Amino acid sequence: VIWLNGGLIAPESARIDPADRGFLLGDGLFETFIAIDGGPIFLAEHLDRLCEGARALAIPLPVEAPGIAEAVHAVIAANVALGRRLAVRITLSRGPGARGLLPPADPSPTLLVSAGVYRNPMPSTGASATIVNEFRRNEGSPLARLKTLCYLDGVMACAAAQRSGHDEAILLNNAGNIACGSRANIFVGLDGVLATPPISDGVLPGITRSFALKSAASLGYEVREVSLPAEAIIEAREAFLTNSLFGVLPLRRIGVTPFEEGPICRAVRNAYRAVSE
Amino acid sequence: VIWLNGGLIAPESARIDPADRGFLLGDGLFETFIAIDGGPIFLAEHLDRLCEGARALAIPLPVEAPGIAEAVHAVIAANVALGRRLAVRITLSRGPGARGLLPPADPSPTLLVSAGVYRNPMPSTGASATIVNEFRRNEGSPLARLKTLCYLDGVMACAAAQRSGHDEAILLNNAGNIACGSRANIFVGLDGVLATPPISDGVLPGITRSFALKSAASLGYEVREVSLPAEAIIEAREAFLTNSLFGVLPLRRIGVTPFEEGPICRAVRNAYRAVSE
Repeated sequence: VIWLNGGLIAPESARIDPADRGFLLGDGLFETFIAIDGGPIFLAEHLDRLCEGARALAIPLPVEAPGIAEAVHAVIAANVALGRRLAVRITLSRGPGARGLLPPADPSPTLLVSAGVYRNPMPSTGASATIVNEFRRNEGSPLARLKTLCYLDGVMACAAAQRSGHDEAILLNNAGNIACGSRANIFVGLDGVLATPPISDGVLPGITRSFALKSAASLGYEVREVSLPAEAIIEAREAFLTNSLFGVLPLRRIGVTPFEEGPICRAVRNAYRAVSE
Repeated sequence: VIWLNGGLIAPESARIDPADRGFLLGDGLFETFIAIDGGPIFLAEHLDRLCEGARALAIPLPVEAPGIAEAVHAVIAANVALGRRLAVRITLSRGPGARGLLPPADPSPTLLVSAGVYRNPMPSTGASATIVNEFRRNEGSPLARLKTLCYLDGVMACAAAQRSGHDEAILLNNAGNIACGSRANIFVGLDGVLATPPISDGVLPGITRSFALKSAASLGYEVREVSLPAEAIIEAREAFLTNSLFGVLPLRRIGVTPFEEGPICRAVRNAYRAVSE
């Protein structure tokens, strides 16, 4: 059962308008997160990011954040029989519009909430990643900092990484600096310092990324948001990914280089587990 | 009346699946062009580009190019009463998929064809454009060379240009070179030479762009596909836009600088009119 524009509905009966700008132009936003035993993890943070994104794109909210939260809880409740852990997705598009790029003056946005059984797309002990040089993050667009429906670069980079035997792609930006994974933020650790690329390098401000930064700092590690050349990841002592579905995940191999799970990753991972299990 | 997945249907009855990856991830392609008195302009070239894009994205065609052409002709015929000039759009998405980035092993792509009355979004005597610095084209992604559903940068750049009193945005890439408009290719002319940015600068290989290059060359102008720094457009004697809907259109103002329609634009525009009116 999903939520579409104001109520619960069976997916077979749900209809997205062929003139929806989400479908035609990628004109919208989404959020994904998990719910455990009916409780969505970091829902407030995801709603904050969604609302900020909607403001940046001038997409009016069909209902305010508490109304979206209600829809999320309704969908989770309706799908609770599926399992303990659900993957939840909120999709907000600008809704139908007339032909052409310019948004309608008075849009009727589409709000879709769905939930399914959570299946970890990653090996739970750690991931293997490779730099996919041919897909760069666009640090020159403010949309790289929003979770928009324009996700095809991530799709293609992820597929390319998997074709070469890896779980995840590492994307550089056009300046050649490390930006992120196809669906994750990336951290490197070296001698008690934890570093991750700044948002301005074409990075999505991940909810789990924020959690990792705060929790590492509170555990006494020095934390830096700093541009990282591609070499930094090979020279690091440890590296890990963060994502709202699979949480904090050590990188066990980057290209041909093996890695051990390091102390910072272990500490942050434990802190994350404490709030998500 | 539109075409959706194998037949004509009233738009009110047409349904895009909420699990369609075109809606959820921008995972698809589109083409737009005009039809005059029932005849689509450069249909073969648009179908070639669509099929090449589908190959690049590994989206299987639900029907081969002649079948798509049939759908296009059926939609045009069904909407012929709307007027002499129609704007036609083909949308091809990867279709519904399970949760997650990775494409389904056996996709059922969505093919949508629609047509509406053509309304020129531009002043017919020429356009005013401005460099929108804050949205850069991503020359580091092969998807910048495909007409994917991920079009939100174009939407936002176009809206920003119009807020500042212009008809069109000029987008630079991350290297600071001119790439294109939000929905057009761009040409500059200087002393008998016509220049346009190369595809590798983050440029969509426009059908009208190709026409303009060929027709200028056959008219005896020297034609160059070459990276153009932002200054090049101000130093040019003339500049124009190309697009499959509004054709060849002189730029009459760039930022605060007025331009006259120049001889190369006039010649190319006349050549384009000969095939599209």
